[in-house]
Amino acid sequence: MQHEEPAEVGDGPVPVLTRVVERWQQQLLAGPVGNAPIWGIGIGLPGPVEFATGRPVAPPAMPGWNDFDVRTFFGDHFRAPVWVDNEVNVMALGELRAGLAQGQADLVYVKVGTGIGAGLVTKGSLHRGAQGCAGDIGHVTVDDSATVLCRCGKYGCLEALAGGAAIARDAERAAREGRSTFLAAALDRDGKIEAQTVSDAATHGDPVAIDLLAQSARLVGVTMARMVNFFNPSLILVGGGVSRSDDAYLAEIRHTIISRSLPLATRSLQISRSSLGDQAGLRGAAFMVADALLSREILPKWLPLRSPAGRTELMAG
Amino acid sequence: MQHEEPAEVGDGPVPVLTRVVERWQQQLLAGPVGNAPIWGIGIGLPGPVEFATGRPVAPPAMPGWNDFDVRTFFGDHFRAPVWVDNEVNVMALGELRAGLAQGQADLVYVKVGTGIGAGLVTKGSLHRGAQGCAGDIGHVTVDDSATVLCRCGKYGCLEALAGGAAIARDAERAAREGRSTFLAAALDRDGKIEAQTVSDAATHGDPVAIDLLAQSARLVGVTMARMVNFFNPSLILVGGGVSRSDDAYLAEIRHTIISRSLPLATRSLQISRSSLGDQAGLRGAAFMVADALLSREILPKWLPLRSPAGRTELMAG
Repeated sequence: MQHEEPAEVGDGPVPVLTRVVERWQQQLLAGPVGNAPIWGIGIGLPGPVEFATGRPVAPPAMPGWNDFDVRTFFGDHFRAPVWVDNEVNVMALGELRAGLAQGQADLVYVKVGTGIGAGLVTKGSLHRGAQGCAGDIGHVTVDDSATVLCRCGKYGCLEALAGGAAIARDAERAAREGRSTFLAAALDRDGKIEAQTVSDAATHGDPVAIDLLAQSARLVGVTMARMVNFFNPSLILVGGGVSRSDDAYLAEIRHTIISRSLPLATRSLQISRSSLGDQAGLRGAAFMVADALLSREILPKWLPLRSPAGRTELMAG
Repeated sequence: MQHEEPAEVGDGPVPVLTRVVERWQQQLLAGPVGNAPIWGIGIGLPGPVEFATGRPVAPPAMPGWNDFDVRTFFGDHFRAPVWVDNEVNVMALGELRAGLAQGQADLVYVKVGTGIGAGLVTKGSLHRGAQGCAGDIGHVTVDDSATVLCRCGKYGCLEALAGGAAIARDAERAAREGRSTFLAAALDRDGKIEAQTVSDAATHGDPVAIDLLAQSARLVGVTMARMVNFFNPSLILVGGGVSRSDDAYLAEIRHTIISRSLPLATRSLQISRSSLGDQAGLRGAAFMVADALLSREILPKWLPLRSPAGRTELMAG
């Protein structure tokens, strides 16, 4: 079962997660086995998470969520153990267990969507870092002279210059300034421009759109090259909406990484598009739960709530 | 037992390692237990090493060493199992097991000596990367407009601008150009200037020396800030000859990291000088061997040579 709907994360945790609980209850009742027992719940959030407690840690894009006890919220509703992680970590785990990264030891998964983030895998398991914010590359400075203010309050952040929202913003400006007839027409028609509009424009050969996507890919590539020198992965997977725009996007990232990294680190480096697409997070959340439930080491301290008897049904969202 | 002597790594592996074997044999005979059995040998090399095979991988500072079978070389001489790793990884391990990093899960150890490199620890064990070159930060570009050619063939590398050799080179130029009477006197007296000379000059208040060290610390700090955002360590330890110059050096690194990293990643980040100094590598090599010998997982595939009966004597160099 899979369900998708937009939500405003800025409404705060209780309204947003209450809606998630309601949707899950509807889906469980509508599912093939009726009100099946839930063995575990896996959650991916768009911000840093302290994995041991399942609480967001000062997430810049999630006002009101800092330190909210997501685990207890779901645990109380479903009487099942809950694991919470950063969404990009969950996606990386999905690729590692069910996608192109199966069997890889050292992986970097990069999501280029509205925001930008990375998930790191070392020796086949996630590296989360001391505060759970490893891979938080959206707010790394890529242009010291940039005058674009990021939502985090700094200037020159990767996300503010190369993320999907940045691409849409620059494209809208180009449309208003009459630099692209394709984008101007789209703005007239839809009343707004999204990253997807820019992808479509690039596919139709619009030079402004092609340039905007190439700039984004180059900045992502510069940041990835630093990561390659530092982390020496065997595989980089690029996912997220922007990365799916066209082949040129991935080609530009690949070119930038190879030209700016140490030869040794890129000798057998593979750079590919995510194979699971928007399934990566869902798969990863399911594996996060299954791995924990089946791990002898983790079980004792990770089962604060009563464990249900019954069949093996995993709920992932 | 400990012995130190200069060696020219460019002479190639056989002459250099033959000398190491001779010194060890002398030391073993002179030691308290005579010709004691050797349970294992730990080696740290100044370049990337494929840990699984114990062979250097295209090490830029070690001409003639590429793919040399260091493990078999020592194994044949001493009939003991051999583990080989990059020297900075070995130092990081030393700090992790016997130094300030004991009990830390996520550590970055940075060596600022003639060259510059880093060792990464995640979940309490080393992250080596796909080719064993994780943490190879000496050849990351820190200044796109730099005109200084690095020994690796690129321009603007961290090592070529901030390493000990770079500091000595710039100080010697300042001495020849008459910009520092302290350094000019040292050059007259010694016929050359080393990084240690610059440290001494800074301690005596020489403004040129102070400036050179501050520049080096700033560039190291900029690189470390990127690592902090990406890896989110709980502790950074700074070691190597240059880092021991004076307190101002570490203070400048610390200031640069804090001012350029995400607030969340530096919330409880500790940045300290290595506690073990030049003992870190020796301790780390011993622990590398002990850990492997005592690990049930590693033993079967890591003991290609016959294992000796007898007492527990570790040889580390």
